[in-house]
Amino acid sequence: MTGVVVLFTTLALNLLCLAFAFDPSPLQDFCVSDAKSPGCKKPETVTAADFFYSGMHLPSNTTNPYKAGLKVAAISGLNGQGLTLARLDFLPDGIIPPHYHPRAAEILTVLEGSMEVGFVTSFPNYKHYSKVLNKGDVFVVPVGLAHYQRGIGKVNTVVLSAVNSQNAGIVEVAGSIFGAKPAINSDYLAMAYRLDKKTVEQLQSKPWA
Amino acid sequence: MTGVVVLFTTLALNLLCLAFAFDPSPLQDFCVSDAKSPGCKKPETVTAADFFYSGMHLPSNTTNPYKAGLKVAAISGLNGQGLTLARLDFLPDGIIPPHYHPRAAEILTVLEGSMEVGFVTSFPNYKHYSKVLNKGDVFVVPVGLAHYQRGIGKVNTVVLSAVNSQNAGIVEVAGSIFGAKPAINSDYLAMAYRLDKKTVEQLQSKPWA
Amino acid sequence: MTGVVVLFTTLALNLLCLAFAFDPSPLQDFCVSDAKSPGCKKPETVTAADFFYSGMHLPSNTTNPYKAGLKVAAISGLNGQGLTLARLDFLPDGIIPPHYHPRAAEILTVLEGSMEVGFVTSFPNYKHYSKVLNKGDVFVVPVGLAHYQRGIGKVNTVVLSAVNSQNAGIVEVAGSIFGAKPAINSDYLAMAYRLDKKTVEQLQSKPWA
Amino acid sequence: MTGVVVLFTTLALNLLCLAFAFDPSPLQDFCVSDAKSPGCKKPETVTAADFFYSGMHLPSNTTNPYKAGLKVAAISGLNGQGLTLARLDFLPDGIIPPHYHPRAAEILTVLEGSMEVGFVTSFPNYKHYSKVLNKGDVFVVPVGLAHYQRGIGKVNTVVLSAVNSQNAGIVEVAGSIFGAKPAINSDYLAMAYRLDKKTVEQLQSKPWA
Amino acid sequence: MTGVVVLFTTLALNLLCLAFAFDPSPLQDFCVSDAKSPGCKKPETVTAADFFYSGMHLPSNTTNPYKAGLKVAAISGLNGQGLTLARLDFLPDGIIPPHYHPRAAEILTVLEGSMEVGFVTSFPNYKHYSKVLNKGDVFVVPVGLAHYQRGIGKVNTVVLSAVNSQNAGIVEVAGSIFGAKPAINSDYLAMAYRLDKKTVEQLQSKPWA
Amino acid sequence: MTGVVVLFTTLALNLLCLAFAFDPSPLQDFCVSDAKSPGCKKPETVTAADFFYSGMHLPSNTTNPYKAGLKVAAISGLNGQGLTLARLDFLPDGIIPPHYHPRAAEILTVLEGSMEVGFVTSFPNYKHYSKVLNKGDVFVVPVGLAHYQRGIGKVNTVVLSAVNSQNAGIVEVAGSIFGAKPAINSDYLAMAYRLDKKTVEQLQSKPWA
Repeated sequence: MTGVVVLFTTLALNLLCLAFAFDPSPLQDFCVSDAKSPGCKKPETVTAADFFYSGMHLPSNTTNPYKAGLKVAAISGLNGQGLTLARLDFLPDGIIPPHYHPRAAEILTVLEGSMEVGFVTSFPNYKHYSKVLNKGDVFVVPVGLAHYQRGIGKVNTVVLSAVNSQNAGIVEVAGSIFGAKPAINSDYLAMAYRLDKKTVEQLQSKPWA
Repeated sequence: MTGVVVLFTTLALNLLCLAFAFDPSPLQDFCVSDAKSPGCKKPETVTAADFFYSGMHLPSNTTNPYKAGLKVAAISGLNGQGLTLARLDFLPDGIIPPHYHPRAAEILTVLEGSMEVGFVTSFPNYKHYSKVLNKGDVFVVPVGLAHYQRGIGKVNTVVLSAVNSQNAGIVEVAGSIFGAKPAINSDYLAMAYRLDKKTVEQLQSKPWA
Repeated sequence: MTGVVVLFTTLALNLLCLAFAFDPSPLQDFCVSDAKSPGCKKPETVTAADFFYSGMHLPSNTTNPYKAGLKVAAISGLNGQGLTLARLDFLPDGIIPPHYHPRAAEILTVLEGSMEVGFVTSFPNYKHYSKVLNKGDVFVVPVGLAHYQRGIGKVNTVVLSAVNSQNAGIVEVAGSIFGAKPAINSDYLAMAYRLDKKTVEQLQSKPWA
Repeated sequence: MTGVVVLFTTLALNLLCLAFAFDPSPLQDFCVSDAKSPGCKKPETVTAADFFYSGMHLPSNTTNPYKAGLKVAAISGLNGQGLTLARLDFLPDGIIPPHYHPRAAEILTVLEGSMEVGFVTSFPNYKHYSKVLNKGDVFVVPVGLAHYQRGIGKVNTVVLSAVNSQNAGIVEVAGSIFGAKPAINSDYLAMAYRLDKKTVEQLQSKPWA
Repeated sequence: MTGVVVLFTTLALNLLCLAFAFDPSPLQDFCVSDAKSPGCKKPETVTAADFFYSGMHLPSNTTNPYKAGLKVAAISGLNGQGLTLARLDFLPDGIIPPHYHPRAAEILTVLEGSMEVGFVTSFPNYKHYSKVLNKGDVFVVPVGLAHYQRGIGKVNTVVLSAVNSQNAGIVEVAGSIFGAKPAINSDYLAMAYRLDKKTVEQLQSKPWA
Repeated sequence: MTGVVVLFTTLALNLLCLAFAFDPSPLQDFCVSDAKSPGCKKPETVTAADFFYSGMHLPSNTTNPYKAGLKVAAISGLNGQGLTLARLDFLPDGIIPPHYHPRAAEILTVLEGSMEVGFVTSFPNYKHYSKVLNKGDVFVVPVGLAHYQRGIGKVNTVVLSAVNSQNAGIVEVAGSIFGAKPAINSDYLAMAYRLDKKTVEQLQSKPWA
């Protein structure tokens, strides 16, 4: 299993209980997702534990090529509430590769260490906004734009991230293109990326997920 | 100036730049609010600082009767992105009185200390869900429901709160009724709260905001 | 069974057929809710009676401590249409205690008698807007704000209320706090309400719902 | 001025203060529309009168060919709240011609007299649902469907109507086609309506609005 | 089977798989509708064919009184994506009768031939906007307004139409009134349309769908 | 000026008149954007030309490195209607590089020639769905996912594209990362893309927009 899989798997697992749902304002107080069937858990079986997660003070797994980790607060009561919370960890020089969230804006708070974060606006300007964040600094990434994070400095970095969707989605921009299964035509990619075909095929042979 | 004012004023200040706007998906990459005029800041004048806030590692002001404080990450780039981030501080036995947010769900993460948090469902069940949170614990409050927080234990408590609206709104349930200006009829309130009129008038005479 | 239960029960019953649904614009002409299963009634079994309710000219039950009653037009065809209609009745000096609707604005029309209605804005202003309504008067309560009604004068008062949600929700601000089950910590409530603990416990011992 | 103009004019006037606004959940407690400028009235100038309308107990003007009238509760505080309230009056045999509201569902309550109301589903079923309503009866018209009302019996009929939009819009299906300015090609309409061209031209020559 | 049925049937068939769904932003990458059960097709069974339709270069059936045809791109992967695509064909002098789409705006592109298209604004203006479109011309019909199309010139006309809903709905304004089943009261319609009752009954006796 | 600029510039120009607007259901028949001021054009100055565009039968400019072109139907009446229409042209072996639309799904129809189109699902599956489209074929790209198009065969390819937003946005996944201004740190990109730093700097030195 490769680095990106380790990096993002918890988030993906958190979404298994989704059937076909939407984000707008609900018609009831809450709808706790039910692992056993579609729809909401019956209210009389809902407990405070359905709104609770423990362990955000513990680091996520950074033993991967990116030297970074992510863990998501898996809370069934978040279903329909339009929020997700995650913790990011970076070893010194750990990175999260460029990606975007199709369905959410993100707000990041550095709890320990330092991190550079940046996002790029859409075509044709591709304006790059970036900032080095230290302890107590907060940064917003607008919905749908490509962005990146990297730990800087000599100590581990810990970040809390909140996004305004129950299922923001992650598209890692290199991985989704070079790691697509089955592979995208390499002549096409060479032309699109202005790379020689051999470099494209090397990129495609790497384990992206 | 009373405790509740100190407690919540930063949040209120953060909202001054709102004219008449809505939460749904935007039609442009971002719309940084402009302190000088309605509408968005011109893109060429936007900088990374518009998406940045510094100081979430520093405590908010808890010198008030509630022994609790709140500070909001004032970020003009959050305009239209449907998110707000805040830090809550509690001295030992500090409290935030029962309140609700008309326009957002809330997710709370305890960074230091311990806090009890609870919410109550709507009529007619009034079911009370509560949990003591320690360091690293996370809890969700569904949109629109009355809820409360109180520090417990012998040390200060620090909490990060994210809500999925640019302007969640705060209605403190006692303050909005007993602190309404001009006052609500006290005979009515005595009947509604099943209190004698004198107790109601004492409540109304206190500084709620 | 206490007054508030009698007051609001019809509304609660009207919502039993909801599974997990939302308010936005539908993808079909209508979706009549089906008492027997989730989803919509099959169109060929829908009749005009599914869009019809009879009896709004008859008073609701006011035999309760609040001397007020509420009845809702139970119409299965309202499912997905974003509207609810109700009738309120007040004996002389009857009241509806302060409450809010998490998911709707409300428009009130006085058909007979007189009623005071008021709402209070959110923190930190708590500005109180109120009006005495007589026959033919109309008043709007903005979405999510705490508000109240009380009959005035020497005759019964009859009011039609329309809200723009299929399930507006009711949170009675005193009842949801003092009537929460299990009870909210009374030391906390004494501090939050600035009442002595004994008064809080008396409030908590009353039948709120 | 023709009948339909008299019938619906108040509704149209109510909308003059709209600039470019939308229905979803607002970002502030309210936004009272300002007759003098776009945007919201400044909160400190808002009074209870901005949420108030007087006169729903008085009949609307039925001196027109349709022997029916409509008056709308003109309330500037309804701006952004997604609701409109109206009163309909019918002389014996008064009618409101077939029409639809592009942006709202409607709920009707008969206060006095009797009225037939009906709606027709969309292509290809054109199923007709209708009901005679008497005092206290309520009926729902789903959003966007063509519907009609007619007074029946020997006395005047009074109806309250609530719709879940600030500006539901009215399209009278005959008037919008035969009263279009400039006129729609009469050969086309003869073919579409399966009428001879002379009948179409007679229809087009009548005062529809 | 009459002309309108032939004209629109493909669209109606396309909608059979809808249960109770809404248009807003989804919580997953896609939800391909499943002919065999409610909810989404399991992702592992989805193929590229679920996003594909073949045959838009072939004419639809124009053998009907309106001398016009419509075919819709039946694509199960469009479920939840808020789009529908259709092809319209007109023999010389073929027409589509006046109609509206309760749930979508429409954009039309003429690929071959010429077509007049027009729409009419809502009450009380009924302003008629129309245009003759030739090859390569594009025209927009705003959501919810009554509009019409007719082929002009001596050759067949081919048009592509895109609407921003998965199920825009079609209400043919004459057909929904005169073809309603059961029939709408003819005395009422005579008064509403300012026609003699005999003409109304002739209209009602024609096969509208 | 480089290829991508030529390719996409018309779309960008079309968006200049946007201030701060949203997609949901409007409160008026239409709001034609006004080049001279924010808000809607006054209704009395709106003409049919505001809903019209001419020239979709004429090819867009393909004289650029990608051998592909795009032109958008610039229609001020589309403001607030949630739709955009475009024409794509491909010389033999012309391509559009991988990109996504943050705010819309897309439906493509091949009018002439042949095109391969594909999209890739989000992390961690990166499943690649692709199809060769010939004349009359239609394909849907779900909202927010990375996708690509390339002409195949020996003749030019012509495609119509409709998206369900007034401003779908374009993020070209390579260009937004390697063409970001100012440049993203090349050590970071080398690690993220698993490329040597020299290749990254070569990529960054190319004219992306």
